[in-house]
Amino acid sequence: MTEGSPGKYMSAEIDEQPDVLGSLVETRAEIAAVARAVAARAPRFVLVAARGSSGHAARYGRYLTEVLLGLPSGSVSPSATTLYGANPDLRDVMLLTVSQSGGSPDLLEVTEAARARGALTVAVGNTPSSPLCQVAELSVDIQAGPEHAVAATKTYTATLLALYLLVDALRDGHGEHVRDIAELARCTLQGSASGVDRAVKRYRFADRVVTTARGYSYASARETALKLAETSYVAARAYSGADLLHGPVASVEENTAVLAVTSTGHGATAMTDVLTTLAQRGADILSVGSAGSAMPAALTIPVPETAEEVAPILEILPIQRLALHLALARGNDPDRPRGLRKVTKTL
Amino acid sequence: MTEGSPGKYMSAEIDEQPDVLGSLVETRAEIAAVARAVAARAPRFVLVAARGSSGHAARYGRYLTEVLLGLPSGSVSPSATTLYGANPDLRDVMLLTVSQSGGSPDLLEVTEAARARGALTVAVGNTPSSPLCQVAELSVDIQAGPEHAVAATKTYTATLLALYLLVDALRDGHGEHVRDIAELARCTLQGSASGVDRAVKRYRFADRVVTTARGYSYASARETALKLAETSYVAARAYSGADLLHGPVASVEENTAVLAVTSTGHGATAMTDVLTTLAQRGADILSVGSAGSAMPAALTIPVPETAEEVAPILEILPIQRLALHLALARGNDPDRPRGLRKVTKTL
Repeated sequence: MTEGSPGKYMSAEIDEQPDVLGSLVETRAEIAAVARAVAARAPRFVLVAARGSSGHAARYGRYLTEVLLGLPSGSVSPSATTLYGANPDLRDVMLLTVSQSGGSPDLLEVTEAARARGALTVAVGNTPSSPLCQVAELSVDIQAGPEHAVAATKTYTATLLALYLLVDALRDGHGEHVRDIAELARCTLQGSASGVDRAVKRYRFADRVVTTARGYSYASARETALKLAETSYVAARAYSGADLLHGPVASVEENTAVLAVTSTGHGATAMTDVLTTLAQRGADILSVGSAGSAMPAALTIPVPETAEEVAPILEILPIQRLALHLALARGNDPDRPRGLRKVTKTL
Repeated sequence: MTEGSPGKYMSAEIDEQPDVLGSLVETRAEIAAVARAVAARAPRFVLVAARGSSGHAARYGRYLTEVLLGLPSGSVSPSATTLYGANPDLRDVMLLTVSQSGGSPDLLEVTEAARARGALTVAVGNTPSSPLCQVAELSVDIQAGPEHAVAATKTYTATLLALYLLVDALRDGHGEHVRDIAELARCTLQGSASGVDRAVKRYRFADRVVTTARGYSYASARETALKLAETSYVAARAYSGADLLHGPVASVEENTAVLAVTSTGHGATAMTDVLTTLAQRGADILSVGSAGSAMPAALTIPVPETAEEVAPILEILPIQRLALHLALARGNDPDRPRGLRKVTKTL
């Protein structure tokens, strides 16, 4: 793309991801050092604080801590602190604050307050010099380089990988499952191009999309909905496959576009029934992930198979491309979404 | 309405709420006894497990425990246990499982597993004889009577009130703020009828609605989105006012229908800027709550003022009526939504 063309930042940053992920794996030892400092404090509970794409990454992090570390986890409602002055006892708690910019005032306030109340505070972000990283006791640098696009892409996947490396080190792992992540990311981007192209054509005039997944990939379903909403202005709603059958399924009808994230493993197995039900209702299903071809879907976008817990790092890549090209096909500039700021200042 | 007319169950159960809430307040002593048993165990962390409307009630409960009790809280991802066999250490944790039916197999499994791992398990539901209430160590009966409508209404508000009474008793309160809740609920239903009528006309052809709020009322915004989706098949998406400015605001444009829940207090104060931004973008804003008239809104539905922490019990009442009458205006039967079961069995 030429200088000044729509979506050039987002496009370039999507393409940078194999290199960004590869470099981050190389710094595993630094993240393992943070893990040792965490282990020394032996937290019993994990709380996460984050918003937007970082919030979806934090959700993935919660899964990792619950399943791989056996630590119960929750997500902080920043407003409980910032609006209502909640003053919880946070001894034995690790607070993971995830923010690529490290500049959100409410997350800063939550982190400061948590540290004062006894929590071990760990910041995960892309800006080591940020106020957040200064305030937190420990920090993990995702080292994704400057992000110019408004829609987070490389900071999202780098955050997922950093969280994985942190948790993996805490369970005395050595990053085996992500050793080849750069190469796998490259294959994912290359191998999905024609599927993305077909999906762009199919979604060209869709104005409502339901995204869904279970387990680790649920974070991907939520990130997908946000990406589609912020770049293509699609009314995208994310549901866990389990929640979907509870009520929102009523709004799924003939020709409702459903994007399911289905990577081989327990999550995809649990999604089979959900997608069968949706297909029976006439939904138009696009399945993205390494188990995509095993699903009742009208269209699939393949992703190389990995350990299930690292699949979210890969499966979002073709979806970022889908969001980018759908925006361009609709005449929008995803680098200049209506009404968005890069750092959101909420109280 | 005559026997067999569309929406008769939902309509009748909406109208029952003042009596249901009044009766439940009368049983405050029973809930206070559960609170004493909880206090004796001195939990340091609260986890909630719930889905659908009960999940929104549980979100309200989390706010109460964080702000009023100073206990950090989180929500369980049932699939971490049911799909991945997560085995967290739950000593010092209180698990609140919220389920009107008490019949969801995954919540049962999560509760059993948590109890085995040392958690104090408390079930909140409408069916004391349910497997869930048998499995949990303690239980709170919301006593809402049989619910025939598929869309939860009276069980939702009764659950909110039960959670409030439990938390209030834990802080040695005596239910002062909900003493007149039955009368206030009656006033809310009566005083909002013409506003609901205007909103039904306004939303007659809306197929996308964004719901939003902050603080305690965020649970109401989420419940609103679910009610509209399950009865009127509207593509309704709920966002915290803070998250909305992070990305999804890009999909809010001229004539996007926004339903904001704004009850007097910190939450509504924090919403003023959000709604001003949305109004500048040309959104069509309906504001429901006691602070509604102070907001930049095209239409308001008034709700009597209360302590902010109990406002969610009232502000959802006119919204339930809106969902009911909108469904009827569109020729749907909200008692027979497409594709819904009353008890959802997910693994």
